Amino acid sequence: MIRKKSGGLTQSHLRFSPRPITASYLVANADFVACHSPAHVDKYDLAADLKPGGIFLLNCPWSAAELDARLPAGLRRGLAAKGARLYAIDAGGIAKGLGLGGRTNTVLQAAFFKLTGLIPLEDAVARMKKANHDTYYKKFGAAVVDMNNAAVDAGIVNLVEVPVPSSWADAADAAKAEPDLPHYVAAIAAPMNRQQGDSLPVSAFVGMEDGSFPPGSSAYEKRGAAAEVPQWLAEKCIQCNRCALVCPHAAIRPALLDAAEAANKPSGFVTLQAVGKGLEPYAYRMQVSPLDCTGCGSCVSVCPAREKALAMRPLQAMRGEDDNWRYAATVADKPVASDKTVKSSQFARPLFEFSGACAGCGETPYIKLLTQLFGPRMYIANASGCSTAFGGSTPSTPYTVGPDGRGPAWAMSLFEDNAEYAFGMLLAAEQVRAGLEDAVRLVAEKGLAAEAADAYLSDVKNPTAASALVAALETATSVDPGLQRAVAAILGNREYLARKSVWAMGGDGWAYDIGYGGLDHVLASGLDINVLVLDTEVYSNTGGQSSKATAPGAVAKFASAGKETGKKDLGRMAMSYGYVYVAQVALGADPEQTLRALREAEAYPGPAIVIAYCPCIEHGIRAGMQNSQAEAKKAVESGYWHLYRYDPTRREAGQNPFQLDSKPPSSSLEDFLAGEGRYASLALRFPERAETLRRMASENARLRLEAYRELRNGGS
Amino acid sequence: MIRKKSGGLTQSHLRFSPRPITASYLVANADFVACHSPAHVDKYDLAADLKPGGIFLLNCPWSAAELDARLPAGLRRGLAAKGARLYAIDAGGIAKGLGLGGRTNTVLQAAFFKLTGLIPLEDAVARMKKANHDTYYKKFGAAVVDMNNAAVDAGIVNLVEVPVPSSWADAADAAKAEPDLPHYVAAIAAPMNRQQGDSLPVSAFVGMEDGSFPPGSSAYEKRGAAAEVPQWLAEKCIQCNRCALVCPHAAIRPALLDAAEAANKPSGFVTLQAVGKGLEPYAYRMQVSPLDCTGCGSCVSVCPAREKALAMRPLQAMRGEDDNWRYAATVADKPVASDKTVKSSQFARPLFEFSGACAGCGETPYIKLLTQLFGPRMYIANASGCSTAFGGSTPSTPYTVGPDGRGPAWAMSLFEDNAEYAFGMLLAAEQVRAGLEDAVRLVAEKGLAAEAADAYLSDVKNPTAASALVAALETATSVDPGLQRAVAAILGNREYLARKSVWAMGGDGWAYDIGYGGLDHVLASGLDINVLVLDTEVYSNTGGQSSKATAPGAVAKFASAGKETGKKDLGRMAMSYGYVYVAQVALGADPEQTLRALREAEAYPGPAIVIAYCPCIEHGIRAGMQNSQAEAKKAVESGYWHLYRYDPTRREAGQNPFQLDSKPPSSSLEDFLAGEGRYASLALRFPERAETLRRMASENARLRLEAYRELRNGGS
Repeated sequence: MIRKKSGGLTQSHLRFSPRPITASYLVANADFVACHSPAHVDKYDLAADLKPGGIFLLNCPWSAAELDARLPAGLRRGLAAKGARLYAIDAGGIAKGLGLGGRTNTVLQAAFFKLTGLIPLEDAVARMKKANHDTYYKKFGAAVVDMNNAAVDAGIVNLVEVPVPSSWADAADAAKAEPDLPHYVAAIAAPMNRQQGDSLPVSAFVGMEDGSFPPGSSAYEKRGAAAEVPQWLAEKCIQCNRCALVCPHAAIRPALLDAAEAANKPSGFVTLQAVGKGLEPYAYRMQVSPLDCTGCGSCVSVCPAREKALAMRPLQAMRGEDDNWRYAATVADKPVASDKTVKSSQFARPLFEFSGACAGCGETPYIKLLTQLFGPRMYIANASGCSTAFGGSTPSTPYTVGPDGRGPAWAMSLFEDNAEYAFGMLLAAEQVRAGLEDAVRLVAEKGLAAEAADAYLSDVKNPTAASALVAALETATSVDPGLQRAVAAILGNREYLARKSVWAMGGDGWAYDIGYGGLDHVLASGLDINVLVLDTEVYSNTGGQSSKATAPGAVAKFASAGKETGKKDLGRMAMSYGYVYVAQVALGADPEQTLRALREAEAYPGPAIVIAYCPCIEHGIRAGMQNSQAEAKKAVESGYWHLYRYDPTRREAGQNPFQLDSKPPSSSLEDFLAGEGRYASLALRFPERAETLRRMASENARLRLEAYRELRNGGS
Repeated sequence: MIRKKSGGLTQSHLRFSPRPITASYLVANADFVACHSPAHVDKYDLAADLKPGGIFLLNCPWSAAELDARLPAGLRRGLAAKGARLYAIDAGGIAKGLGLGGRTNTVLQAAFFKLTGLIPLEDAVARMKKANHDTYYKKFGAAVVDMNNAAVDAGIVNLVEVPVPSSWADAADAAKAEPDLPHYVAAIAAPMNRQQGDSLPVSAFVGMEDGSFPPGSSAYEKRGAAAEVPQWLAEKCIQCNRCALVCPHAAIRPALLDAAEAANKPSGFVTLQAVGKGLEPYAYRMQVSPLDCTGCGSCVSVCPAREKALAMRPLQAMRGEDDNWRYAATVADKPVASDKTVKSSQFARPLFEFSGACAGCGETPYIKLLTQLFGPRMYIANASGCSTAFGGSTPSTPYTVGPDGRGPAWAMSLFEDNAEYAFGMLLAAEQVRAGLEDAVRLVAEKGLAAEAADAYLSDVKNPTAASALVAALETATSVDPGLQRAVAAILGNREYLARKSVWAMGGDGWAYDIGYGGLDHVLASGLDINVLVLDTEVYSNTGGQSSKATAPGAVAKFASAGKETGKKDLGRMAMSYGYVYVAQVALGADPEQTLRALREAEAYPGPAIVIAYCPCIEHGIRAGMQNSQAEAKKAVESGYWHLYRYDPTRREAGQNPFQLDSKPPSSSLEDFLAGEGRYASLALRFPERAETLRRMASENARLRLEAYRELRNGGS
């Protein structure tokens, strides 16, 4: 089997033979082609590799008549030309009906065996059911096995053969306006996403020899991967923006329209009078992008309105929102955008959007929020891990820019040197900026653009002040010859004027483990660098290996009988320096505290580290990833995770630098642990050991809290 | 210039030419040869590379008549044959008289310029004096410059030309009994130490292809590097063994003689009746090895007797002790040796001796003590640094074995992976031993050697129990056929029976900096590994670069204007795990606490780290390295360094795991800082900045103490 993954599509190329198969190339003349997502029919040339007379299986909820209408002309012509045998099955509907959520793989696998007859069907069914037992019984119990067995049966009985109408041979393409795409998207990303990247000539990459990619290409992918997407119910909305805050993909955003924008809005673009101080002039709307949404339902889950102001609807039923989304994108950023409250933070444009992160991802909301706060002047060094997989998934780039063309500069480095990589960025940028600051001081002393120069010098992090200084210097009519060199330096390096916000970012595998030596060294430097640790308590991207962030009793790879040692207290270790800003946050538990921590970390004139609790598919959250934010809340309420901020500047003010932000545990730690497969699975397999480790986990949580309380009371 | 360093000898090969010199080989036909140590005349063929008619300069306190008697026949013949011009100067006496201690280099450099006439003497003198000013003024002030200028003058006026008597051409070798040397020493180490290693054929190394060297070769070096060595004044001795404890080179050791040994002792081998419980049967003596002593005077400095029981005497006057040392080495180890008190610990044989460490070294006494406590079953992984330079200085190996052939297994690894290297040793040894333990359990269950097996199983760290079990199995007359495999496994792997004491060892450059990521990972493992950090607060071996262990205000390379950030609190970071034994010690301040910490660390059935304060030549201790132990005491008394032990086993007993062992500061931190060049030099160069950093250093010390007090009071 060859597995190929790119642009949101995973292709499995399988060959079967009684003799050993040595072919290492892809299958180009297949007996059987299956398309597991109805959204793919519009994107890929699915019949291209089908053998004449071959079988084409499509997962879709469509009848024969609907297929005629839904399938694009190219695919219809291809199927007709190949004389294909076309089968449809509503695997999505079946899986949902069985309680399997979006997990359609078992249904489709059964259909595969039924259609291909590779081995006797009875044999295939027996083996699949045995595999279900072996895979799920110990980890999840009999009910999950039964569901999957039912999926096997359903995959066989629900197959529908659809005769390919002869009319398809001449299907005519619908007239379609080609959107005006950026060169990179049209010339490189689009062919790659159509699985035609191998055919791109080297010359297509001229100008990109350094490996950099233009920002914002993810906005053109429009994956349409969700079965259901949220519908905004304006009349129930309380305008808190929580849905936008937690959306892992920035696919739901508030819009503020001034009178002119409101006057030009399309019909169906329902708005409310915006509520809140300073928002009086504006109309408010929460806008969903159906094709960018992954359908995780986080937004619905966190909606605090008395009656939920969001409801999940089938994707196709919501495609009318596509035009509304496009209109919302034309609405100008409003000056009310500020970072002082969670609500206002969401009026700022996210500069991280539509990544390939999992539905319900606990990491991406933090990154998105960072870009809303500091995006236009951010430098990000990103350690290997999920955040580089979804942050730099060629050809798609989720980091983007605002209307002024400014956005985060992002690059990935290794587990073992990412903090150092960020440190290098900081030193380089500050080296240039320090020279510029001298030049600005000189200019100001001589009275040239003095007001703008002083404004810049008093707030070197402010991009607006920097821009104003550039404008003042550019329009200065007579420049003293002695200042010409300084002015030329400032104008020539204007991009460096506003102090960069440098962030080292990565998961716990990086920060607690492989990259910790360097991270510790960089924190110890005392320089103004920021660190965001996306703590999933496990190596998520590589498949769930135990890290030093894994808590005792959790099952992970390399700790398959439960981890026996405590969770490393990275924050307390960083606090031991006394001059490092340290915070632990959990967005789902206390978004205001998260926002405060990120702002304080960035403002602190020294090293800062924020350790963010990130629910993850690796946790096996029983309540589902749509409730990942609520799960983080439970983690804090049960005393599993603690919120705090350690701010060295408070010491100068005679205050204890340490503030314990989370309340004493108010719910059961055991209940929390029982709600996550990583803990609960151990009890099924090794009940006694599970009990021992559970006690250890409880003791670990208690000792941590005790240590934090002492810090709160003591104040070292 | 080519500099070659080996076997305690540093050779500088200099060439001078008005044209560029490209020769990269050593000088073999020299116009000028100088020997800077009188001890070298007996060791090296010093005239071998002298050009006929060349100049030979010898630093020695000898008159012409004494030279005739002292120089070995070979050298006398060589000088005569070459028609050499021989000059003598008592650079040692001059330097001492000027207050320069053993620093003879300036005297000898001036003599070099006087004798060679390479540049006009006036010019040479002016340049040397300018260099003295540039080098010492800012760091140490005018007095040091003046001393060195006086040394320049003295090097010129005190040169004595000694006519080479014609009789030297036929000087006859004195009859000399060749000692019975081990093969390695005779065949490899001796030629290498004579600077003839390059002439060794590859075949000399047959049997050593894996890079291992036989232990104990340093005992054959007999460097005789000291100008003065201690004389034991029996009548003043209180038998505390402190001198032996602190000796960096294990060159002074107590001997306990039973009646037979006392009866056979050589004349001049003065003994006392041993004092102390259990010592009644023995005669006591403190024995010095003049040729192994470096003359640092640490032993004299720490002697707590009312009148010092040790006094420094010229080396040559003490050579009579050589025979006494040899006799003392034949005295059997006495069963009273125990590790319960500092005094008794010193009756155990050190298995680390005569290394090439600096005179007064603060690191080696800890290592020596470790080998006295755990040597026969130690595995040591040693990180790059001073401790590998003096621990594995080919061809000399200071690690040695006892009469039973057992001693530490030692190997060096890199800064970046040494903790992991030790971890691998632990895993490998424990993997074998765990299998053996199963075999022993099986044997015991079947009643074979049951008593010995039970004794072993109840104390697997005890080598005596392991040996007894082996003896019992070897003498067992009838072995059940079902047990034969188990018995064979035990006997075949007998070396692994006694649980190894695995130590990762290295300096702060390793533990705080480059190797910290791995060290943290290994400590987090929870396994039974031990770590000794030799904290000199600076990269000592590479020339004094700042590390994260460097305290604020200290001047070091990369921190030449004083370090601006606090000292990393490695111990507190390790304590944050809660299951790591952690101690900070300072031998000079509280040897009993050091001993307790090392014993507790080793006994703790999990990871343990001991951070040891090590005075170092890099500190610029004003009182001199002979007072390095007293300096460590001052460090603790002034609150600069803190003594504590964090023992997780105490928590189980309901006690606070943290014990602060040092008392509240009782002397001035400022006085301590003023006594060390690394701090004091800053005040000469940047008085204001020095004051700021001094306040920071003081605040740093205060905050650390406060944090420890909170730990003591809190008990997390």
